[in-house]
Amino acid sequence: MKPITNMEKSPWETLASKKIYENAWYALRQDQVRTHTGKQITYTFMEHPGAVAIVPVTADQKIVLIKSYRYTVKDWCWEIPMGGRDHEDLEIVAKKELMEEIGGVTSNLEYIQYFYANNGVSNIRCDVFLARDVEIGKNHPEDSEMIEIAFFSKDEVIRMAYAGEITDGMSALSIFLCEKYL
Amino acid sequence: MKPITNMEKSPWETLASKKIYENAWYALRQDQVRTHTGKQITYTFMEHPGAVAIVPVTADQKIVLIKSYRYTVKDWCWEIPMGGRDHEDLEIVAKKELMEEIGGVTSNLEYIQYFYANNGVSNIRCDVFLARDVEIGKNHPEDSEMIEIAFFSKDEVIRMAYAGEITDGMSALSIFLCEKYL
Repeated sequence: MKPITNMEKSPWETLASKKIYENAWYALRQDQVRTHTGKQITYTFMEHPGAVAIVPVTADQKIVLIKSYRYTVKDWCWEIPMGGRDHEDLEIVAKKELMEEIGGVTSNLEYIQYFYANNGVSNIRCDVFLARDVEIGKNHPEDSEMIEIAFFSKDEVIRMAYAGEITDGMSALSIFLCEKYL
Repeated sequence: MKPITNMEKSPWETLASKKIYENAWYALRQDQVRTHTGKQITYTFMEHPGAVAIVPVTADQKIVLIKSYRYTVKDWCWEIPMGGRDHEDLEIVAKKELMEEIGGVTSNLEYIQYFYANNGVSNIRCDVFLARDVEIGKNHPEDSEMIEIAFFSKDEVIRMAYAGEITDGMSALSIFLCEKYL
């Protein structure tokens, strides 16, 4: 294998860029790009402001999951609270999503890690928080959210993640990234 | 919390559906939908044929990762071989991607699990294989791929995944799902 000797941040050059679609949550960006080989290609991808995911743990060490209906896959998925980044401050987004999806309140948020959810076709980045001492009240789902809340032990959630029962990948990965802090 | 008593597969009704964009890899589908509350909404999402991800392990128990430049995020990511599902048979896709990305050959493929990579805005489903006894030769990357190959022990790959060094979420989660089989 020939090594890549020139690992600068942007070995590809953007020649032109436009949005060909946009809604309230994301856009579709179409760029003309010169790659490392010199070839010109069109690269079209979903431009997303990013997501914030929160693994919520109550004072008595229960992990809160939501069962959510996802129209995209016509399936119910176990998930953690998560939402689009609609504010510069990640903690503000995390607290808003906790309230919306599980009626959760905490002052104990710890930033854990980030990952790219689907980097071949989208720039979406997911920032993961662990929320401790979460108090649960009445949730406030959006019209496009159909969810039910349930409480699990750490061992059960980890078992579910390994067994593939948490089919929402962003939630499963967030749980693994938090595992050692649970 | 009011329980969701009616967990049928499709509590939302599709009233109309059209593609508003399409390329060789995915489409953007725009549906008119009646939700569980009776409200009509427009739901626009990326329609993708699915991805196949492979955790490749050599006969001497090394795990093969690729460092890949991702234009979407303008960043280099540690990843496992992965590609769009361009054939009905998942094993055929897995073997093709192994060859393209790491020049890998094996007859020892085990299906592990699937997950949805980004279920709020895309139907993309990722099917994960563990590939054992992989022999590595010359790779054949596509024009849009800029990759370098490296070999790691199982312990090192797991450490990297927990530490957030494998920033491609689909790769990190695939590795966790394979962990107990490694």
